[in-house]
Amino acid sequence: MEIKPYKKDSEYSYALGAFVTFELIDAAPEYVEKVLVHSTFTDKEKLMRMCAGRRIPVETNDRLIAKLSDKENVFVIGVFRKFSGRLDSSRPHLVLDNPSNMGNLGTIMRTSCGMGIFDVAIIGNGADIFNPKTVRASMGSFFRIRTERFETFDDYLEAYGSSERELYPFMLDSASFLTPGIKHGPLYSLIFGNEATGLDPTYALKGQPLKIAQTEYVDSLNLTIAVGIAEYVFTKT
Amino acid sequence: MEIKPYKKDSEYSYALGAFVTFELIDAAPEYVEKVLVHSTFTDKEKLMRMCAGRRIPVETNDRLIAKLSDKENVFVIGVFRKFSGRLDSSRPHLVLDNPSNMGNLGTIMRTSCGMGIFDVAIIGNGADIFNPKTVRASMGSFFRIRTERFETFDDYLEAYGSSERELYPFMLDSASFLTPGIKHGPLYSLIFGNEATGLDPTYALKGQPLKIAQTEYVDSLNLTIAVGIAEYVFTKT
Repeated sequence: MEIKPYKKDSEYSYALGAFVTFELIDAAPEYVEKVLVHSTFTDKEKLMRMCAGRRIPVETNDRLIAKLSDKENVFVIGVFRKFSGRLDSSRPHLVLDNPSNMGNLGTIMRTSCGMGIFDVAIIGNGADIFNPKTVRASMGSFFRIRTERFETFDDYLEAYGSSERELYPFMLDSASFLTPGIKHGPLYSLIFGNEATGLDPTYALKGQPLKIAQTEYVDSLNLTIAVGIAEYVFTKT
Repeated sequence: MEIKPYKKDSEYSYALGAFVTFELIDAAPEYVEKVLVHSTFTDKEKLMRMCAGRRIPVETNDRLIAKLSDKENVFVIGVFRKFSGRLDSSRPHLVLDNPSNMGNLGTIMRTSCGMGIFDVAIIGNGADIFNPKTVRASMGSFFRIRTERFETFDDYLEAYGSSERELYPFMLDSASFLTPGIKHGPLYSLIFGNEATGLDPTYALKGQPLKIAQTEYVDSLNLTIAVGIAEYVFTKT
């Protein structure tokens, strides 16, 4: 296997940085191919111990790290095989329709992991979830989240829709507001659209649309913030 | 006046992009020095009308736009004088202690503006709030927010502390949680630390520390998300 700079159709991706690589080894050791370490990395002992226990090969290779890390200041890289998963049908879901920004996607995974929503459905062919930028922005939460991709929202519904699952599309023109004490059942899907375009109007018919109250002075909230607020309210109420 | 690429000690800064420049002209026309427009910009009519009404000079200058816009795809730039302001003592405040990331700072201003907290205190000499990156990340909310910088938190308290103002430092090791229906008075300051280091422990004595409940799987939430959740809960409860 030859290790090359990441491309969307690569069989492998990279956890850039020691923190993200530790998360990879801890949460998804079965997908780790090898770990690259820079000769000047100072916390080698912990890394060697984690890898030895899981029979993960470690290679010191400064040139390869420079080649893969794309200008970032990186001393450890975890090389991992891409994997595909299934969502847990008994858990709340976050559904993202055509997210386009890889950094946002990573930040959303970190938030979701912090709020306790571990299942994320991606609709359409937007941002590449395996891109090292997404993985890095997630601070490693990527490896604790179950993700599954669907061509259309109807495909998602066919797989996971049920009479118990409540659907909440977040839409700016909804008449109903998200409120701090909102009543909801234990099984729900929070649905968000693309950063620039939001959800298309047909989503209003698929569930109970909600909007987050905001002043007239902004067009919208940043997608990552809107997801954070909604997940907080649903998981804490 | 010669227009040069932005530096921290420049007397001027730049609103990069048509959307941000429209916000600048609408919210803070008194600080606009001139507007630069690219010869290929398609929505000139609206821009000319806004500028004419406020006697703002408009200059077509493709080379200067390329020089100031730093690789971004920009067709309009608003050149504005830096200004300093005072917070409104009768309103809730957001207090940021040494924020370091200019993009985050802009995103936080956009969120604050959306939630209706228009006063932001900055403690210390962290991120440059006037940097065009901050202004751009704010989507122009920068021009609707009152900001004031203080050397120390005690300086802030001397200026704005009062028996009516409740102080809520957000700290990961607090024993008290932010809750969706939290009781609070009408006048409060929500206080957040630096992205990497949080607030120093002495803040616990300055008010009622709060933490946002999160799973064991993340070190912390992204600062912008934590601010968004806290502002949402306080302004909607």
